[in-house]
Amino acid sequence: MTRYQYLATLLAQRIEQGLWKSGEKLPSVRQLSAEHGVSISTVQQAYQVLENLQLITPQARSGYFVAPCKAQPPVPAMSRPVQRPVDVTQWDEIMTLLESRKDKTVLALGSGSPDLSQTTLKPLWRELSRQVQHNPDTVLGYDDLAGKAELRQQITRLMVDSGTLVSADDIVITSGCQGALSAALLAVCKPGDIVAVESPSFYGTMQMLRGFGIKTIEIPTDSCLGISIEALELALEQWPIKGIILVPNCNNPLGFIMPDDRKRAVVSLAQRHDIVIFEDDIYGELANDYPRPRTVKSFDIDGRVLLCSSFSKTLAPGLRVGWIAPGRYLDRVLHAKYATAGTNVPATQLAVAAFIRDGHYTRHVRRMRRVYQQNMEAWTCWVRQDFPDGICVTRPAGGYMLWIELPEQVDMVCVSRCLAKLKIQVAPGSMFSASGKYRNCLRINCAQPLTETNREALRQIGNVVYEALEDANTLTPPKAPV
Amino acid sequence: MTRYQYLATLLAQRIEQGLWKSGEKLPSVRQLSAEHGVSISTVQQAYQVLENLQLITPQARSGYFVAPCKAQPPVPAMSRPVQRPVDVTQWDEIMTLLESRKDKTVLALGSGSPDLSQTTLKPLWRELSRQVQHNPDTVLGYDDLAGKAELRQQITRLMVDSGTLVSADDIVITSGCQGALSAALLAVCKPGDIVAVESPSFYGTMQMLRGFGIKTIEIPTDSCLGISIEALELALEQWPIKGIILVPNCNNPLGFIMPDDRKRAVVSLAQRHDIVIFEDDIYGELANDYPRPRTVKSFDIDGRVLLCSSFSKTLAPGLRVGWIAPGRYLDRVLHAKYATAGTNVPATQLAVAAFIRDGHYTRHVRRMRRVYQQNMEAWTCWVRQDFPDGICVTRPAGGYMLWIELPEQVDMVCVSRCLAKLKIQVAPGSMFSASGKYRNCLRINCAQPLTETNREALRQIGNVVYEALEDANTLTPPKAPV
Repeated sequence: MTRYQYLATLLAQRIEQGLWKSGEKLPSVRQLSAEHGVSISTVQQAYQVLENLQLITPQARSGYFVAPCKAQPPVPAMSRPVQRPVDVTQWDEIMTLLESRKDKTVLALGSGSPDLSQTTLKPLWRELSRQVQHNPDTVLGYDDLAGKAELRQQITRLMVDSGTLVSADDIVITSGCQGALSAALLAVCKPGDIVAVESPSFYGTMQMLRGFGIKTIEIPTDSCLGISIEALELALEQWPIKGIILVPNCNNPLGFIMPDDRKRAVVSLAQRHDIVIFEDDIYGELANDYPRPRTVKSFDIDGRVLLCSSFSKTLAPGLRVGWIAPGRYLDRVLHAKYATAGTNVPATQLAVAAFIRDGHYTRHVRRMRRVYQQNMEAWTCWVRQDFPDGICVTRPAGGYMLWIELPEQVDMVCVSRCLAKLKIQVAPGSMFSASGKYRNCLRINCAQPLTETNREALRQIGNVVYEALEDANTLTPPKAPV
Repeated sequence: MTRYQYLATLLAQRIEQGLWKSGEKLPSVRQLSAEHGVSISTVQQAYQVLENLQLITPQARSGYFVAPCKAQPPVPAMSRPVQRPVDVTQWDEIMTLLESRKDKTVLALGSGSPDLSQTTLKPLWRELSRQVQHNPDTVLGYDDLAGKAELRQQITRLMVDSGTLVSADDIVITSGCQGALSAALLAVCKPGDIVAVESPSFYGTMQMLRGFGIKTIEIPTDSCLGISIEALELALEQWPIKGIILVPNCNNPLGFIMPDDRKRAVVSLAQRHDIVIFEDDIYGELANDYPRPRTVKSFDIDGRVLLCSSFSKTLAPGLRVGWIAPGRYLDRVLHAKYATAGTNVPATQLAVAAFIRDGHYTRHVRRMRRVYQQNMEAWTCWVRQDFPDGICVTRPAGGYMLWIELPEQVDMVCVSRCLAKLKIQVAPGSMFSASGKYRNCLRINCAQPLTETNREALRQIGNVVYEALEDANTLTPPKAPV
C-alpha cells in the first residue's frame, strides 16, 4: 500500500468511528502533513481518494468537510431458509441475466466479471499470443486429461499461501470453477442425493445441482461468520445429506470469511457424519487482508474436501482455466471430467502458467485486492446515500460483491425488470435461493471502476427502489424488514 | 485433384482390379505419357505416389513392376454384440491410452488426433494470435452462454453442405464434440435410462454414458452400411430405449457412410418409437467424396435429432470448439451446458469464425480429405504386407481411422502392452465395446504423414501380432476368425 492510500484508509476509519462528525471541518493539508510526517502532495492525494469515495466534500477556500452521510447500515441478520430438501428452481431469472450479457450497452452490475482493464493484466495476453505463435503444436493438439503439468505445478505453489499442501499430481485442470464443481458433484453424487448449501448461495452452483437431479437443503448462514454449524449439524442428523458446498472465503454473495475455528468445526462435522465438502475458493485470493485466509481443505486430514477454484475472478473468465484438488476422489473426478467435458484448451493454460512463473500473477492480485477493497468502500458509501432507510448491507472481507437487503415490501425481480429497460442489470436475491427466497435482496458487482457512469447507475437503482417501496407502501402497510 | 494424383488413382485402381498381376511389368513412362496425353514428369510423379504406397517397385534399368502383394483382405462382417442393456466398463484401458499422451516420445497411433502439420492451418493460429492482441476485452471476458454469434453464423453456412438447415439461434457452441454430446445426454436422459449405440462404438461416448449412469445396448453394425435397422427395431420393441447415438458419416471406428435410405429409415424408426437420435458428425466433413454426405438431422422433421460436432478433427482439438444443433431440446441443452461446463473460451471461437469467413476452412478441409484418403490407402497397403493372413480390414469412406480384425486368438490388450514398451500406442478393440468385446481388433490412426517412422512402427505392430498369434497357436488349436 502506498503512503497516500495508507493515510486515506486511516482518515476514512476515523470518519467511520465518528472522530469527526458529519459536516465538521477536517484538519488542513498542512496540519496533516506535519502530523504524519508526509509530503503535502501525499495528503492531497489521500483527500482526493476520500473525496472520490464521497466521504468528504471540498469547499472553496475553506478546506475539506465530512460529507453529510447516513449512519452505516447494519449487516443482514442470519438467514432463515426453508429447512428441508428442495428442487432448485429460478432458471428463468438466470437465463434473463445471462441473455442480457449479449447486449454490450447494458451495464452488467449483476454479473460476476472482474475488472479486466488493469495494466497488470497485460503480460497475460502478451503471453497468450506468444504461446500461440511459438508453440503451435502443443496449442493445437489434445491436452493431457489432467491438464498441463507446468500449470498444475504453479498452482501448487500458489496454494501454499492458503495452507493447502498438495502435489501437482493431485490437481486436475478444469474449464473454470464451474467445470471443477461439476466434475466434483458428478464424481460423488447421484440423482436424488441431497447436498447442503449456504443460504444465500451462488446461483450457478445451485443450477448445477438441478442439472444433475440433486436436491438441495439451504442452511442458515451468518453474513459475517458463514454457515451456522449448529443448523448444519441439525440438518445432518435429520436428512441423509451426501455433502456440503461451501464458499468459505470471500463468500459469494455475502463476502464473509469463515473464521478458522469454524472451518475446523465443519471439517470435523463432515468426518463425524462421513460426508464430503465441496469447497469453492474462487474468490479466496481476493481477501482484503494479506496473507490470504486458509482453505477448509487445509484442515482436511482424510481427503474428503474437494477444493475447486479458478482464475476467472483473479485474472479473466475468458481463459476458462479452473482446477480441482479432489483428495480421495481423484480417479472418479478424472472420469467425470473425461465424461462431461473431455480435455481443455492448452493455450490459455500455458499462458497462465507463464504469467504466474514470471511473477505477474502476484503483482496483479496484490493490486486487485486493493482496488476491489476501495471500490467496495465507495459503492457502500454510494448505497448509503442513494437507498432508502431500513436496508442492511454486507461488509465484505474480500471479493467484489455487495449484498443488499431491502425492506421486505420491495420485490427486486420487478425492480430488475424496470432497471433492464434503463439498460442496468442487477442480480435479484431470489436467484441465490433454491426456492426463490430473498426477493427483497440484490447483489451488486463492485469490480467495475469508480466512474461517473457507475455512480449514476447506482443512483438510478436507488430511485427505482424508492419508487417500488412507495408503490408497495401505498398498497400495503409497511412491515419491519426481514 | 492434380493430374498426377488422378493418374496415380487410376493406375492404383487397375492394379487393385488385377489388370496387371503381381510381379508384372508396368507400361513405361513414355507409353503412359502418350496414352494419357500428360507430361513425362506427371507420369513420374504418379509412379512415385504408387511407389510410396508400395503398390509398385522400381527395378534399375527395367522400369516399374507391380509389387508382390497379398490379396485385399475382406471387410469385417456384421458385428454381433451382446443384445441386452449393460453398464459400460473398460475405463482402465482408456486411462492407459490417455496416460500415454503425456509421453511425447510415444507414437500415438491409438489417438484421434488429426494431422496438424499442414500449412493450410497456419492462418488459424495467426488469427488466434491476432484476436488475442486486438480484441482483449472480448477474449478475456465471459462468453455468451450459447457461444459467439459470429461463429454460430459461420457454422450454419457450413451445415448447408450436409443438407442441414438451421439458424444461428438454434446452435449452441460447446467444448468440443464431447461437450456437445454431454449436454445432449444430460438434457434428454436420466440415470438408469437405456441408450442404443453402434457396435463397435467410440469409447469416449460410451464412457460418457457410464459417467451419467446410463445403460447401453450395442446394436449389430455393418462395416460398410452402418447400424442394422432390423436389429435396432428388434431392440426398440424389446427394451425401453430412450435414444440412439449414431456416427453415420465416416464412422469412428468403422469408417462407413450410412446410405441415405438407411438414414431416412432410422429417423422414421425414431419417430415411430418416439425416441431421440444423438448424431455425432465429427468426421462428416472428411468424407473421401465431395459433396459431403447428408446428416441424419437433414431428414429430421420434428426436432428429435440432436446434431453434435466439432472442429477437433477438421482443424485442431486444442481449440475445444464444438457445437450442437439440439432441435426441440434447445432450452434443456442450454441449461445442461450451463450446469456442467459454463461458458467457453471466446478466443478460439473468434479465430475459427474468421478462419471460415476468410475461406481458409474450405481450402484446408479440401486438402485434408485428399491427404487422409491417400494416407488410408497407403496404411491399408502396409497392413496387408505386415499382418498375418486371415485378417479383415475396413475400407473407410472418409475420416482417418482403420479398423483391423485379427484372428480370434490374438489378444490386442496384451499386444498393446507389448507395443507400449516399444513406445507405440494403438487402440485395442475392446475399448470400443461396452463389455470388452473385440479384443482381437484394433483401431489405427492414419492421419499422420507417410513417414519411414510410421512405416517402421506398423512393421513392428505386425511383428508383435505375428508373435502373439504364434504363441496362441502353440497353446490352443487355431480357430476360424470371428
